[in-house]
Amino acid sequence: VFTLGIDVGGTFARAAVVAADGRLVTVAKRALGERKPEAVADCVAHAVAEALEAARGVTIIGCGVGVAAQLNPSTGRVRVAPNLGWRDVPFGELLCARLGRPVWLLNDLSAAAYGEFYAGAGRGQRDLLTVFVGSGVGSAIIANGQLVAGIGGVAGELGHIKVVPEGGRRCGCGELGCLEAYAGGHNLIEQCRELVAQAGSPKLLALAGGDPSAITPVHLEEAALAGDPGAVRVYHQMRDFLGVAVANYVTMLNPARLILGGGVLSRLPALRRSVAEGVQRYASRVSLTEFQVVDAVLGDDSGLMGAGLLAAQHAQASHRITH
Amino acid sequence: VFTLGIDVGGTFARAAVVAADGRLVTVAKRALGERKPEAVADCVAHAVAEALEAARGVTIIGCGVGVAAQLNPSTGRVRVAPNLGWRDVPFGELLCARLGRPVWLLNDLSAAAYGEFYAGAGRGQRDLLTVFVGSGVGSAIIANGQLVAGIGGVAGELGHIKVVPEGGRRCGCGELGCLEAYAGGHNLIEQCRELVAQAGSPKLLALAGGDPSAITPVHLEEAALAGDPGAVRVYHQMRDFLGVAVANYVTMLNPARLILGGGVLSRLPALRRSVAEGVQRYASRVSLTEFQVVDAVLGDDSGLMGAGLLAAQHAQASHRITH
Repeated sequence: VFTLGIDVGGTFARAAVVAADGRLVTVAKRALGERKPEAVADCVAHAVAEALEAARGVTIIGCGVGVAAQLNPSTGRVRVAPNLGWRDVPFGELLCARLGRPVWLLNDLSAAAYGEFYAGAGRGQRDLLTVFVGSGVGSAIIANGQLVAGIGGVAGELGHIKVVPEGGRRCGCGELGCLEAYAGGHNLIEQCRELVAQAGSPKLLALAGGDPSAITPVHLEEAALAGDPGAVRVYHQMRDFLGVAVANYVTMLNPARLILGGGVLSRLPALRRSVAEGVQRYASRVSLTEFQVVDAVLGDDSGLMGAGLLAAQHAQASHRITH
Repeated sequence: VFTLGIDVGGTFARAAVVAADGRLVTVAKRALGERKPEAVADCVAHAVAEALEAARGVTIIGCGVGVAAQLNPSTGRVRVAPNLGWRDVPFGELLCARLGRPVWLLNDLSAAAYGEFYAGAGRGQRDLLTVFVGSGVGSAIIANGQLVAGIGGVAGELGHIKVVPEGGRRCGCGELGCLEAYAGGHNLIEQCRELVAQAGSPKLLALAGGDPSAITPVHLEEAALAGDPGAVRVYHQMRDFLGVAVANYVTMLNPARLILGGGVLSRLPALRRSVAEGVQRYASRVSLTEFQVVDAVLGDDSGLMGAGLLAAQHAQASHRITH
């Protein structure tokens, strides 16, 4: 039994034929051109055709699509996809028509978490919390061996918990004081540029070769570790908000493992260490007795794998209900 | 098929014969005398004998015991039970020997949440968050129609998330800055007495008839609503910490319903309203589209019902594994 696992990110669409054991049989990748929903669906369709062509003859029983978005899996409607510039797009319907087969949409981090659970850093455990810090901040929860989706499919939105409930920074989601507004890569860079514009961080500007538009979160960590006061302020704020927030979810969910991933966490080793230390410091003692912090190990494959595996479950569940 | 559902609180032990549909066939209640584990086990045994006597002839397939404690369901060991003054007590083993049958320990609020899920305020939904504010602050999560216990059985410890990560008040659990240290009934009363000792709240003292030891959380709400500055400070702090914390869990878990219960929330109507408003204000927009705040409806019965129902599940699962 095979499924299609698809990942729609901000830059690429990727499609894989996924075996029942999670193995990726074939993978195809296409750069997104236009971000219009129809153009993205076309791009996905080309990747799918290529992946299927290479795996010729297999029978596909389901199709799971991870999208970097807040979306409702039961309707296939994308509510907000900041990287794609979408708001309220019936992408599931659109893609279903374009591919000529039913598709099942889910959040990209949920798909990735399920991949890590099944075959990666969470293997063998039934209770996991994954936290990804990249351009945004996201997470996913596995409890009792199942993905926690919530009634509307938007569980796990760690980036949008409020860390400054009154008068906080504006987040990409439109609300104020979200964790992502302080700790997501895009927002970190924005804060760095504000700092540099106010002449608040000479070291940071020097590390970016004097060009504010070249600043990355890696420069921020470097400047902060070098003691640049402006950089220290932004960096510590992010670090402390992340550490306490993640610790509080460990207290609340008592996972066997916290799986850390995403571009910012994987490229900022001191931050990765601080988050792990923050959890040890702020989580309740009893939640830490059988607890480990580990890194995501499957990279980009986890999302394809998870989308494919969950599509298989979904197809089998629908089958049971229908017949 | 029948089970025993038992609830060990800080004041009473109660036992019920529970039918497969959650109905309580018979209920017996005994006041706890001594708090020593052996004495409590004796007291439970008397309540059980009485409940069984009244339901004579039924076959009992399992026994679930909710305890107001942080405990490990898989070992039956109680780690901390502040109301009973216990630390690291093998109560499951003790009770098993005393009753002459296997028992399955769980947190009392988890049992209550499962009762509400099955037959009360959460009926018909698969994703719930219950928050109980009484002498302590606790919660339980139902996701995909299952109780979320975590690897060590201590998930849901909302009272022990950190709301003042550095330099906060000392909590009953021994840590600093926990939500319960600001919002649990015991701690509220302590804060009120501190206030009164510093002559910081004349209104509050008057409401308690001039006797600091008579102050209850009801007086605090009354004094705060009357504008007494000291009471306003303590009350707003509790209200805001609770509102944001609960909202952040709604963002993270996307439940269909938030079920509110416990002595403090049920006796302080303005606080109950403020928590509901805080959730509407601070939770992410997308998590609120199919969301309701409701009150727990089963009272003390929910814990007996939940313990009995979960014991039946547990017995059947063990049965499947063994044979």
